[in-house]
Amino acid sequence: MVLGFISQPSIAGLQIETVSYDECMTTSLGTDIQCSIARSLEVLGEKWTFLVIRDALSGSTRFSEFQSSLGIAKNLLADRLATLVQFGVMERRSYRDEGARERHEYVLTDSGRELVYAVGALLAWGDSHRPTELGPTRILRDAVSGERVRLAFITDSEEIVPQDRVLAEIVR
Amino acid sequence: MVLGFISQPSIAGLQIETVSYDECMTTSLGTDIQCSIARSLEVLGEKWTFLVIRDALSGSTRFSEFQSSLGIAKNLLADRLATLVQFGVMERRSYRDEGARERHEYVLTDSGRELVYAVGALLAWGDSHRPTELGPTRILRDAVSGERVRLAFITDSEEIVPQDRVLAEIVR
Repeated sequence: MVLGFISQPSIAGLQIETVSYDECMTTSLGTDIQCSIARSLEVLGEKWTFLVIRDALSGSTRFSEFQSSLGIAKNLLADRLATLVQFGVMERRSYRDEGARERHEYVLTDSGRELVYAVGALLAWGDSHRPTELGPTRILRDAVSGERVRLAFITDSEEIVPQDRVLAEIVR
Repeated sequence: MVLGFISQPSIAGLQIETVSYDECMTTSLGTDIQCSIARSLEVLGEKWTFLVIRDALSGSTRFSEFQSSLGIAKNLLADRLATLVQFGVMERRSYRDEGARERHEYVLTDSGRELVYAVGALLAWGDSHRPTELGPTRILRDAVSGERVRLAFITDSEEIVPQDRVLAEIVR
């Protein structure tokens, strides 16, 4: 269905010119503000955030670990972690190394660990469609059996449904 | 493993101050430039891109359809579509409505359609962790049986592996 151009003061365009990357985050994405995909991206859609999650899923918890892995400016990393804490993706905990001052570590919550599906999908897509000569950098495995795992769509009765048969029904 | 702070001229920080959102795209994310997740995000990680993919997976092909759904500035939408065409996620095709000038439509390639896993993961996460009172906006179904589907990790022998048993082995 072609709705034609709707009247839109070019707010998005102005943002790009005048507002920093950070401030863009709070802007709802798209006219469908109820869309769960857009709502996920409001938390996760900023540059670096998925890589913070990636590292957290691999066991990083300390600011310095994220910082050295990502090579990201400290103020940006602090902002990203604060957003993830704010939205319940990570929990901030105190720790103190012997003789050192108190610091904080960032631990994925249950909600954060569920992002393994999104990160796994980005990993698989990159491996398939933006491969390098060196091959994959990460392989997903069942920690119990050691077998490789991949993402699939399944029904409630655990039948696997091929990707090209999956449709998104728009409910409202 | 804590590597400590590495010396980083704050390039990322400077970008935030001085470079537009668009220009950020070409910057490699993180020090691990071979990481498939980072390489996926170089194509997909810009604001709006996943919502363009979402709409394309729901059948949108025309510039005006994306534009009215997203309420995005035209120049931004054109940039996002150009990036997706450049990286083989979409194909640009000509069409001409009766009496109108030639226009272009944007159709997902096989590579683009595989992003249903990533978009499905963002949808499920948003439904679970950023729900609204109105409930889900989209429900994923098997087009053949009509059954609801969800994402799962499976082994080569099609055994389902719980999310908390999935580990990312870092290969190099």
